[in-house]
Amino acid sequence: MTLMFGSDNAAGVSREILAALQTADEGYALAYGGDQWSKRLNKEFSEFFEHDCFVFPVTTGTAANALALAAITPPYGEIFCHERAHIYTTECGAPEFYCGGARLVTGAGEGGKLSTAVLDAYLAGHRTHNPHHMLPAALSLTQATEYGTVYSEDEIAALSAIAHAGGMKVHMDGARFANALVSLHASPASLTWRSGVDVLSLGTTKNGTMNAEAVIVFDADLAKAVAVRHKRAGLLTSKMRYLSVQLAQMLKNGLWERNARTANDAATRLAAILCESGHARLQHPVQTNQLFVELDEVVTQALEKADIEFRRWGPGVDRAPCFRLVTSFCTTENELDLVRYALASNGPSALQVH
Amino acid sequence: MTLMFGSDNAAGVSREILAALQTADEGYALAYGGDQWSKRLNKEFSEFFEHDCFVFPVTTGTAANALALAAITPPYGEIFCHERAHIYTTECGAPEFYCGGARLVTGAGEGGKLSTAVLDAYLAGHRTHNPHHMLPAALSLTQATEYGTVYSEDEIAALSAIAHAGGMKVHMDGARFANALVSLHASPASLTWRSGVDVLSLGTTKNGTMNAEAVIVFDADLAKAVAVRHKRAGLLTSKMRYLSVQLAQMLKNGLWERNARTANDAATRLAAILCESGHARLQHPVQTNQLFVELDEVVTQALEKADIEFRRWGPGVDRAPCFRLVTSFCTTENELDLVRYALASNGPSALQVH
Amino acid sequence: MTLMFGSDNAAGVSREILAALQTADEGYALAYGGDQWSKRLNKEFSEFFEHDCFVFPVTTGTAANALALAAITPPYGEIFCHERAHIYTTECGAPEFYCGGARLVTGAGEGGKLSTAVLDAYLAGHRTHNPHHMLPAALSLTQATEYGTVYSEDEIAALSAIAHAGGMKVHMDGARFANALVSLHASPASLTWRSGVDVLSLGTTKNGTMNAEAVIVFDADLAKAVAVRHKRAGLLTSKMRYLSVQLAQMLKNGLWERNARTANDAATRLAAILCESGHARLQHPVQTNQLFVELDEVVTQALEKADIEFRRWGPGVDRAPCFRLVTSFCTTENELDLVRYALASNGPSALQVH
Amino acid sequence: MTLMFGSDNAAGVSREILAALQTADEGYALAYGGDQWSKRLNKEFSEFFEHDCFVFPVTTGTAANALALAAITPPYGEIFCHERAHIYTTECGAPEFYCGGARLVTGAGEGGKLSTAVLDAYLAGHRTHNPHHMLPAALSLTQATEYGTVYSEDEIAALSAIAHAGGMKVHMDGARFANALVSLHASPASLTWRSGVDVLSLGTTKNGTMNAEAVIVFDADLAKAVAVRHKRAGLLTSKMRYLSVQLAQMLKNGLWERNARTANDAATRLAAILCESGHARLQHPVQTNQLFVELDEVVTQALEKADIEFRRWGPGVDRAPCFRLVTSFCTTENELDLVRYALASNGPSALQVH
Repeated sequence: MTLMFGSDNAAGVSREILAALQTADEGYALAYGGDQWSKRLNKEFSEFFEHDCFVFPVTTGTAANALALAAITPPYGEIFCHERAHIYTTECGAPEFYCGGARLVTGAGEGGKLSTAVLDAYLAGHRTHNPHHMLPAALSLTQATEYGTVYSEDEIAALSAIAHAGGMKVHMDGARFANALVSLHASPASLTWRSGVDVLSLGTTKNGTMNAEAVIVFDADLAKAVAVRHKRAGLLTSKMRYLSVQLAQMLKNGLWERNARTANDAATRLAAILCESGHARLQHPVQTNQLFVELDEVVTQALEKADIEFRRWGPGVDRAPCFRLVTSFCTTENELDLVRYALASNGPSALQVH
Repeated sequence: MTLMFGSDNAAGVSREILAALQTADEGYALAYGGDQWSKRLNKEFSEFFEHDCFVFPVTTGTAANALALAAITPPYGEIFCHERAHIYTTECGAPEFYCGGARLVTGAGEGGKLSTAVLDAYLAGHRTHNPHHMLPAALSLTQATEYGTVYSEDEIAALSAIAHAGGMKVHMDGARFANALVSLHASPASLTWRSGVDVLSLGTTKNGTMNAEAVIVFDADLAKAVAVRHKRAGLLTSKMRYLSVQLAQMLKNGLWERNARTANDAATRLAAILCESGHARLQHPVQTNQLFVELDEVVTQALEKADIEFRRWGPGVDRAPCFRLVTSFCTTENELDLVRYALASNGPSALQVH
Repeated sequence: MTLMFGSDNAAGVSREILAALQTADEGYALAYGGDQWSKRLNKEFSEFFEHDCFVFPVTTGTAANALALAAITPPYGEIFCHERAHIYTTECGAPEFYCGGARLVTGAGEGGKLSTAVLDAYLAGHRTHNPHHMLPAALSLTQATEYGTVYSEDEIAALSAIAHAGGMKVHMDGARFANALVSLHASPASLTWRSGVDVLSLGTTKNGTMNAEAVIVFDADLAKAVAVRHKRAGLLTSKMRYLSVQLAQMLKNGLWERNARTANDAATRLAAILCESGHARLQHPVQTNQLFVELDEVVTQALEKADIEFRRWGPGVDRAPCFRLVTSFCTTENELDLVRYALASNGPSALQVH
Repeated sequence: MTLMFGSDNAAGVSREILAALQTADEGYALAYGGDQWSKRLNKEFSEFFEHDCFVFPVTTGTAANALALAAITPPYGEIFCHERAHIYTTECGAPEFYCGGARLVTGAGEGGKLSTAVLDAYLAGHRTHNPHHMLPAALSLTQATEYGTVYSEDEIAALSAIAHAGGMKVHMDGARFANALVSLHASPASLTWRSGVDVLSLGTTKNGTMNAEAVIVFDADLAKAVAVRHKRAGLLTSKMRYLSVQLAQMLKNGLWERNARTANDAATRLAAILCESGHARLQHPVQTNQLFVELDEVVTQALEKADIEFRRWGPGVDRAPCFRLVTSFCTTENELDLVRYALASNGPSALQVH
């Protein structure tokens, strides 16, 4: 089965990234970040974010999240996140491990997004702190969310303000941060430190690199809190140049933007193709590169017949089967045509013809 | 300064490895180990080790060690290792972190090697277990050792037998395992499960890959203990194919052996060049790719003048300055000539001429 | 303000317990459990539970719970409990700490009780285990529950059967275990190992001792898992005889039963007094020594005027203010009369007279 | 066998302490430190220490040490202590557990004492901090030491100054703090905050209480760091009044001093009795209530014949058997006479007569 819409983790890497790896493969280079690519990272990302920032390369999004959260959450602290947050559902307790036994507390919210009301209610429950209760420590927001939606700059700022007033730091899980940037036509600064984000897990793997992620902080003290945990967690790579050169390459010639735009656009078109069938109902607005959609059997059968991968994703709102389809930087026009063709020849359109 | 002898982590990657990465970059592949390269790993390494084995790719040696140790050491357990073991000196407490608060207890030993006498003495101190004492859980051996020496198969077997009798499991830190194999003309099986090793941290990075390491176990139950911690520690890469293809490539056409032999041979020749000067005294026999050597000032000045990197490594036995030089799979004849020339033109040989 | 109904932790200790402490204060005794009282504990409790059991004295209920849970829950495990469970709401993350980063997952349920349906649903969510998910490890039931209700033997057995089938061990938080025993006219065996409980936190403090609690297990292997954590957690008291003699004293002449019965009966009568006013509505059936009750202002004012303590406990079902009143082994007839008198002279009855 | 010299943990409790427990057993009292005795603790100990201090009652010395160390040691921190420190040898890794994986590093030293030279050497090894090394976080001193010796005020001050300059906090394990105070004729202030101690584990159990220990800090911020861990570790007792009243009672009418003096004096006399035999050689000066002494067989046989307990404690300096004898607040003149008599009738004196 072709894996085209199963996950953006199934994609390969950008041509530019492979080339960059070869560029970095020149003779000797100091290990553990002493190489020229690693040493330039802080400067290059500081320009990108329009703010002094500190970059810690890691190789998985889970590591980035757990390391970032551990830097802002003591063992007796709580991390508040959406009930569908990846850190809660799909990271096998990595945040609890890295934080030394902290607790994730979850809230509900439309489209995978937390509202200020939900955060307020959470904090209200901690107003009369006594020694029997854990302390609110971190708010974790996913951008783009697990349902492919995005938080606007104002939404982030409003949530961050409440979190900070409640003594919490703000973490952003940016596994698909580039997709959110493109979707919102926003600057990296506006969606992070300017709206109160303290620490960012910046993913680039889904956007075209070879397992290159980073924890990015905007404050020197916080950078120290990350640094003392980076090696200890086994995340400090010896030949770091091969990670750093990838992260740097994403910033060159707008590669991050081009890749994310390709993915987002493909998702929009894929949604249109499916919806035109009259047998698909979007569960959430398609704002980045993920579709969550109820599909009638005529559609799912047509796609399966055409060997097109997509994933069951729980029951829909009205209990019809819901599915997830994910596009990526390498989704092609041809692949979208395959869907069109599958629906036309085997699916609802075909039926309509008859 | 050229970094040629500073560390084998300063080397780039093998040409074959870069090629393999491109091979793996073909269209979509299931993430998290569902790809064809990852799925074949167990089989390929089982052949290499002549025993069923389970392979868990990670990206750093510290992660491999900590993950391996956590699978065999409960929080109330002790890990016995050499006082110069990398897990004790240079991993920022990663084993303690991964094991949830276990303790490293160290023993002394010539050439970075533990003796059965030292292990016996350690276990004797735990004979009358009472609730106030931690429990011996793991013996960790480094092969090749931190001083470039190697444990023979018999030595490993003798140590493992004592450890097992004392209720401990045996871990091998194989950051330079290939170098040891070549040095001993031994089979992978003989230096691991056949001589009692339960879990191996197999390093390939220093031997020519791009941050590709693995935890390898020879038992299904132990594999489960690793598996439940792999993702939780943030070590399960999404695009795992790019790790797995490297690990697999090392086994093809003897790449691991060719690279390790190049490094070992270069070290032997480098030692000869230095010792011929009459101003260098080896601290440990050169059995793999590391030299620990006392150097007179005439030599160090000559090397520095020629911009050749090497590292101060504590005082020597008789308090003369001691240095470490490391060769690698990419050390060239030309680089050795540079040393020869440096010593001849600026160093002791030059002086002798005059 | 008299603290009579604020908490059973506000009560002193039984006369018999003070006497027992003096009995134990005879000359020298081996520390750390080597004394005669500690050495008899296993035997005495084995008789009480009609099963070999292993007793680990501790000084707080939180320590008992955390230690018990750590013995059955690996760091990557989940503990399933009621959303109002004390281990979740009021122990500051002690289970997470002791387990090394495990996760508490909560379910809802009437009267503070988990149903088999809720447990089934929880386990269903883990059916297709993959490396991204934590593992179900422990079911924790509170007996009597946080709302003063009790699980019947059949209910425990049904829940335990599901838990065991799902690979979980069963923990019982018995902070008020004696109250449950009395309420159910059940044997200690029937409510524990016979219905599938693997490990019990046995509280006696609320029932009349001076901070004497115990972890009790019914299996030698599990006893080892507790033993290796007991000292490490700082819970192994040196002069353990003063804990053990209290635990033993509770079993003598039915002290545990007499005390629990006094508390339960007082609660029943207190409930009757309040309800007779026509201005009180019980939230949960009064099965042990805790009342959760909506009170009209005329009642709360009368109680406050009489300086009688009770606690606000969240809004009632229909949003009227809800309160908790707790009786104890030392609640007297006189104290109940104070309530009667308060309501008669200042409260609803008084109004009725007019 | 009478346990008189086996351990001061084998002693019972002071008459005054039992009386105090009965005093505290008056009606209701708020739990978790809300009672009058607990609420006065800070004030009473602030007077004792002549400095604002914050008192956290716990029930074991191990808990006190681990809690204290966790408040000053991050997971990536090192605790430097003597190689015979109780926290290293006899607490089953409690510090590592409470600190979330910190490391104990040990130094040698005469009489169980660390010297400034040893501390300097330790810190010198950390001068060039890099990400691969753990950070020096805490210095732990035992007062009186494990060998019954004491640190003078000047010695503590000198060690603390070095520790603070190296970024470390200073912990004092005061399991036998009162014995040290009496031995040195020193004030509580002079041996703690005035000489740089940041956090004290204050033991009173060995000095006559019923498992009452405390963590004492002299700084409000540090008090917060203890407070957030106190409940989480399961150490916050519900009926705390029974702990607090004991701690308070020790300060009344010089009970702590009287008890410690009795123990110290008994040790001095016991040492004299043994040494007069000509068959005993003290290993360390007897400064508090512990003797470490080489005994010839004629002495050990005489003591054993008289059923007097004492413990083997490793080989002596010149390999003769070494023993530990501990006196306590309840050692009587009569017990010392038993030793005199045993040696006179069965032992060396008897032999001398012949």
